[in-house]
Amino acid sequence: MRIGIAGAGQLGRMLALAGLPMGLQFLLLDARDDACGGQVAPLITGALDDPEALRRLGRECDLVTFEVENIPAAAAAAAAEFCPVQPPPEALAAAQDRLHEKRLFEAVGIPVAPFRTIDAAEDLPAALAELGAPAVLKTRRMGYDGRGQRFVRDADEAFEAWQALGGVPMVLEQCIAFDREVSLVGVARASGERRYYPLTHNVHRDGILATSVAPHADPALQQLAERHVGAVLDRLGYGGVLTLEFFVVDGRLLANEMAPRVHNSGHWTIEGAATSQFENHLRGILDLPLGDTSVRGHAGMVNFLGTLPDRSAVLTVPGAHYHAYGKHPRPGRKIGHATVVADNAAALADALARLEALAGVRAGN
Amino acid sequence: MRIGIAGAGQLGRMLALAGLPMGLQFLLLDARDDACGGQVAPLITGALDDPEALRRLGRECDLVTFEVENIPAAAAAAAAEFCPVQPPPEALAAAQDRLHEKRLFEAVGIPVAPFRTIDAAEDLPAALAELGAPAVLKTRRMGYDGRGQRFVRDADEAFEAWQALGGVPMVLEQCIAFDREVSLVGVARASGERRYYPLTHNVHRDGILATSVAPHADPALQQLAERHVGAVLDRLGYGGVLTLEFFVVDGRLLANEMAPRVHNSGHWTIEGAATSQFENHLRGILDLPLGDTSVRGHAGMVNFLGTLPDRSAVLTVPGAHYHAYGKHPRPGRKIGHATVVADNAAALADALARLEALAGVRAGN
Repeated sequence: MRIGIAGAGQLGRMLALAGLPMGLQFLLLDARDDACGGQVAPLITGALDDPEALRRLGRECDLVTFEVENIPAAAAAAAAEFCPVQPPPEALAAAQDRLHEKRLFEAVGIPVAPFRTIDAAEDLPAALAELGAPAVLKTRRMGYDGRGQRFVRDADEAFEAWQALGGVPMVLEQCIAFDREVSLVGVARASGERRYYPLTHNVHRDGILATSVAPHADPALQQLAERHVGAVLDRLGYGGVLTLEFFVVDGRLLANEMAPRVHNSGHWTIEGAATSQFENHLRGILDLPLGDTSVRGHAGMVNFLGTLPDRSAVLTVPGAHYHAYGKHPRPGRKIGHATVVADNAAALADALARLEALAGVRAGN
Repeated sequence: MRIGIAGAGQLGRMLALAGLPMGLQFLLLDARDDACGGQVAPLITGALDDPEALRRLGRECDLVTFEVENIPAAAAAAAAEFCPVQPPPEALAAAQDRLHEKRLFEAVGIPVAPFRTIDAAEDLPAALAELGAPAVLKTRRMGYDGRGQRFVRDADEAFEAWQALGGVPMVLEQCIAFDREVSLVGVARASGERRYYPLTHNVHRDGILATSVAPHADPALQQLAERHVGAVLDRLGYGGVLTLEFFVVDGRLLANEMAPRVHNSGHWTIEGAATSQFENHLRGILDLPLGDTSVRGHAGMVNFLGTLPDRSAVLTVPGAHYHAYGKHPRPGRKIGHATVVADNAAALADALARLEALAGVRAGN
């Protein structure tokens, strides 16, 4: 059984590392011939928006999945000429366009922050007046890790932001004063089985995920989040991992965005859950029985952005495991992370604080 | 940091799979160019008893370790000309010769079954008379998985066995009516830190490990076993994993043999312990802080010998994880295993029984 993965960054790499122990084989596709996944599995080069490249991946594999959502529907369809593609390409189409994503959320009853579609600069003043300032202007496509978005406080700023973001189709979202950001990683088999990890509390800095803590123990919110993720899984006939990010506002959940793939906020599951999100994604796309998603005590993750802290210093922290992706360091680039497992929330907080200091998070690195 | 591993079977493969997530790189050495470790890391071919092959491994790596103990001291020394070798080559020398091993155990105060050295056939009658029949005749070298040994009930059988085993130097051991077989996996840093996994209860069939169960909860035996393993670690200035197999006889431990490496009876640690034996071996040889060795509830392992059961059937068993080594099936060959984690001993026993049935263990496969 050979699985093709479109994208060979750290997510593709960790998928392969989760599947090799199960006797699965992999073929990775990436535009870069030095993509870090190529250190652990065979890599072919080609653009992820090139149908011919995806066709080759589909021809050489038994099933194709992806580590990024920005793969055009036509390219995903090209792979699907030769083998199953999971999660389903419809999930890509929804996730890669903020407007489609919000329409999907609304269609299955998931609340989102009020927003307006911005097709042209002329739409800005009325939209801003209706939503109220400040608001967040976001490109519909290619936004991640805080890219492709700007806070705007008035019509002049909105117009400047629209120009700076390229004048492409956008959405303007009401700025939500949320209590916290959480995510739910769910996993499905096309034949029906579903599992959900515990809600994870995420802290972003400069738009990039800095730390995750699980469980964010709130049974009512957990149930609500599972219902929301389940509704998307139902709608899409889904196999594999699906992640939804939410804002928590007065005990309610507003969906921010979805990722039809393994997600940075689920990295704690590698050592912190009975089955990692990577193993469960593979089980899900292969329609194999899913693994236990429960957290082992209390678990968390700290991203290493730009620089890797000393391995020995990280491993001195009780319960810590060290992950490095084999990527070239560059300011702000995700090049590794630490996971940590602890018996109680206080011990976890202590460990995370030590790891954040080592990662330079406090220093704004 | 590139680590050379002498031997690229499943143990070398699982070591590499444990180290790649930590950003470590590997180079494997094996006599076979299709050794299964080569599917996950670069492989060079060469005999493990060829000093030149080990010299090349040492030259191209920052540290050399091994997955088998049958590497001659001269070959290990050749690698050590270029980089550190851990565990120390003295551990190889002790582990690859049953007489040296028993002498080491005796020297550090670890009880062993009564035995006699058999240098020639003429030694057999007196040895058998002194130890009593039945006894077990074992070659001093190259014995594993039940190979190189025979039960003998009288002098005639002993002589026949001696011939069948090749007339090489042997030991004759008193046959021990043991209650059970257990093993202890310990891990050390050369700088001093030590950790021990819980005692594991092992069941062999036809001389080959069939199942392991952990913890074998017996605080007095655990303490005794840790003292024994610790005594060997002390003696050898050890870095990495060391496994001792014991017979339990009336609440006492008799050492059977040692393995200066990760061990089949520790495979349950991959998902069943906070840190796997593979990750801890790497931490130990690199003198990095060791990881938590505690068991997550109750854990076990079932070997897949000769054939791989259906992946989906295995994963249907609650708490099970499926491991396949990418080896060609052959009767009796270790080609994969399942680990299982459960909340209590009864659930673990149920799961292991289901996995054993799937693995064909009951049918003597």
